[in-house]
Amino acid sequence: MIIPQNGSALRQDAAAIASEAIRSVLPDEAVARALKNREFGSGRLVLVAVGKAAWQMAKAASDILGSRLDRGIVITKYDHVKGSIPRVVCREGGHPVPDENGFAATEEAIGLVSGLSEEDTVLFLLSGGGSALFEKPLIPGEELAGITRQLLASGADIVEMNTVRKRLSAVKGGRFAGLCAPARVYAVVLSDIIGDPLDMIASGPACPDASTCGDAKAVAARYRLTLSPEAERLLETETPKSLPNVETVITGSVRNLCRAAETACRARGYETVYLTDRLNGEAREAGAFLASIAASHQDTPVSLAYIAGGETVVHLKGKGRGGRNQEIALGAAAGLDGLDRTALFSLGSDGTDGPCDAAGGYVDDGTAGALRAKGIDLHAVLADNDAYPALDAVDGLIMTGPTGTNVNDVTVLLIRRP
Amino acid sequence: MIIPQNGSALRQDAAAIASEAIRSVLPDEAVARALKNREFGSGRLVLVAVGKAAWQMAKAASDILGSRLDRGIVITKYDHVKGSIPRVVCREGGHPVPDENGFAATEEAIGLVSGLSEEDTVLFLLSGGGSALFEKPLIPGEELAGITRQLLASGADIVEMNTVRKRLSAVKGGRFAGLCAPARVYAVVLSDIIGDPLDMIASGPACPDASTCGDAKAVAARYRLTLSPEAERLLETETPKSLPNVETVITGSVRNLCRAAETACRARGYETVYLTDRLNGEAREAGAFLASIAASHQDTPVSLAYIAGGETVVHLKGKGRGGRNQEIALGAAAGLDGLDRTALFSLGSDGTDGPCDAAGGYVDDGTAGALRAKGIDLHAVLADNDAYPALDAVDGLIMTGPTGTNVNDVTVLLIRRP
Repeated sequence: MIIPQNGSALRQDAAAIASEAIRSVLPDEAVARALKNREFGSGRLVLVAVGKAAWQMAKAASDILGSRLDRGIVITKYDHVKGSIPRVVCREGGHPVPDENGFAATEEAIGLVSGLSEEDTVLFLLSGGGSALFEKPLIPGEELAGITRQLLASGADIVEMNTVRKRLSAVKGGRFAGLCAPARVYAVVLSDIIGDPLDMIASGPACPDASTCGDAKAVAARYRLTLSPEAERLLETETPKSLPNVETVITGSVRNLCRAAETACRARGYETVYLTDRLNGEAREAGAFLASIAASHQDTPVSLAYIAGGETVVHLKGKGRGGRNQEIALGAAAGLDGLDRTALFSLGSDGTDGPCDAAGGYVDDGTAGALRAKGIDLHAVLADNDAYPALDAVDGLIMTGPTGTNVNDVTVLLIRRP
Repeated sequence: MIIPQNGSALRQDAAAIASEAIRSVLPDEAVARALKNREFGSGRLVLVAVGKAAWQMAKAASDILGSRLDRGIVITKYDHVKGSIPRVVCREGGHPVPDENGFAATEEAIGLVSGLSEEDTVLFLLSGGGSALFEKPLIPGEELAGITRQLLASGADIVEMNTVRKRLSAVKGGRFAGLCAPARVYAVVLSDIIGDPLDMIASGPACPDASTCGDAKAVAARYRLTLSPEAERLLETETPKSLPNVETVITGSVRNLCRAAETACRARGYETVYLTDRLNGEAREAGAFLASIAASHQDTPVSLAYIAGGETVVHLKGKGRGGRNQEIALGAAAGLDGLDRTALFSLGSDGTDGPCDAAGGYVDDGTAGALRAKGIDLHAVLADNDAYPALDAVDGLIMTGPTGTNVNDVTVLLIRRP
């Protein structure tokens, strides 16, 4: 059990729901879901796995596909390769700052997908961190870094930055899928960005690019970028606008996480309300909002569960320990105080909530009283961003250890009846 | 139309839903609902109306009951009597600081309900502001003010303050209903406090008191109150613990307001999700939370409406103009930016949102763009708590004028389909 137990049915439900939700977005489960009943025809099947979860995703695919897989490559960050995978080479590179090892591995991947026919398939497994790990710059690395610095200093936003940088890369902005053609590309994406913008995840190596050369030149002009003649020329080279050889499935995302939590709630007799998978405000305020929902539905004859996922923020003011999920939980504690069989938990799917070893927090209608009984002032704890020791004192820490996935956070409010 | 129109169906829906919601909690409607099909037997019927909405409530009751009403009294704040009501005397007193006029009017009300039989009924119409307007102190007014000051300075909370003060009053803490006995009391309450705590609304003149003499003495000891021998003696005099002659109906409350908004949404084809009538966090964050719900449900095949009521807060940092409802609306604007046929409005049922003449705000998927087009920086506006002029610039102010009621706020999120 990832939440301390004391015989309370609510704690038991919360722990089971949290476990099932996380399990559904582990790289293994996510890849298995994407490959279920999937046929790849008679051609060759080449695996390219890129990102922080690349090794786990590739391992899962290899376990399922066995010798059907002809060859493959994993490109992940240092210390993320956990063993050998048959017919797959494993490479490690720099993250978040790209390095020569990443460039070399990317070149190797391009080699693997070269010369394929339209009977063949590239199984492209993508996870967060791919922007740095999967890169072949079309200008010297030093020049690319210089342009990035200019863009950052000018105040360009992330869309403007990507509009320029995609054109300086041989694989970003849909170009990797172009290199795979005429082979088909089956892209399986573990999304770590709210809303799953495919052109942003790893800079979209298999996603048609919506921006144009005109856009790129306008950005360069707006911020008066200093560019070499070669870079100038590249900004005028168009990226793919349609990629008929690509099929993409988002298999692990905050939406999967939230839907799995919802399914787990239903399995335990809760009627569910799926609020959002786009949560993005101040963590403690999201907790207070959810508690206000709980207070308003105490007379429900049936068990109710409300699900909200996304990625909240914490504006640090204090010097305590904690994380956004722990703040969501503590932010709800005052509003849940004295309600009837009502609990809320929140956790990060990567198993790490802020700079501490907890994945998130659990509170219920008794938490505020338990804190008072221990002389802990809820208000002062929040003011100091010190949720961790407070939750620890009332058995409210969720502990999973690192999960190997990262698809943001999920928060569940439970009202148990009758 | 209380929201500026431009042909948009969303604006039209929002204006109609807002109007219907407010209408349902106007004192006239609220009283009419409470008196519908109500029989008062053959005995005398005496009206006592107390609070900021007392005159409107009494007028509505008089219009319905006509000569069935034997006699009555209105006690409201200065300038709130709008004309004469047959057989009803109208008195005005001090608010929020009680004064001798209020005390005299309360004495007059006690005279009106004295000597009634168990065949008789007191129709007790209660609204916010009653704590100050309806009072007969059992100690000199000066001494009562002194004790209140001591409690305030000591940091006592509102429950502790009321525990002491109820015992120093002849009408609070259920004592007025005790004075009406053996006559029946039919209390009709317009609630301005979230959660409708009947012992708090006007300090509960017709509500059994849950606190005990022991509680009161403990508060006096805890804060080392200086009390006269007379006050000491009063703290040991018990308040009514049960009032079998009282029947209470809450007819106007934030719940009525929210349910009326829900009904109005349904009448226009929206499927509704009733989130809460206990909202209480930071206004702009509630707006952001609701916008995150909208972003997550853009693929809905049917029209959806989410309803949230309560009373949010604004932690003022800037020097601009606005109110909490306008901040809820602007807090949602960034999250609604570019969505499809999605709007949010929020308004105070009293028609006054903060120190300005608007009742609240309306935003939709085009608001953020309209602000940008006018060179208005949404972020800067919120940082300066300056919602009013920004909403004004994009036709986003809701204007109702004072409504004569106050049952807190309602926020409605609309997603219109197909």
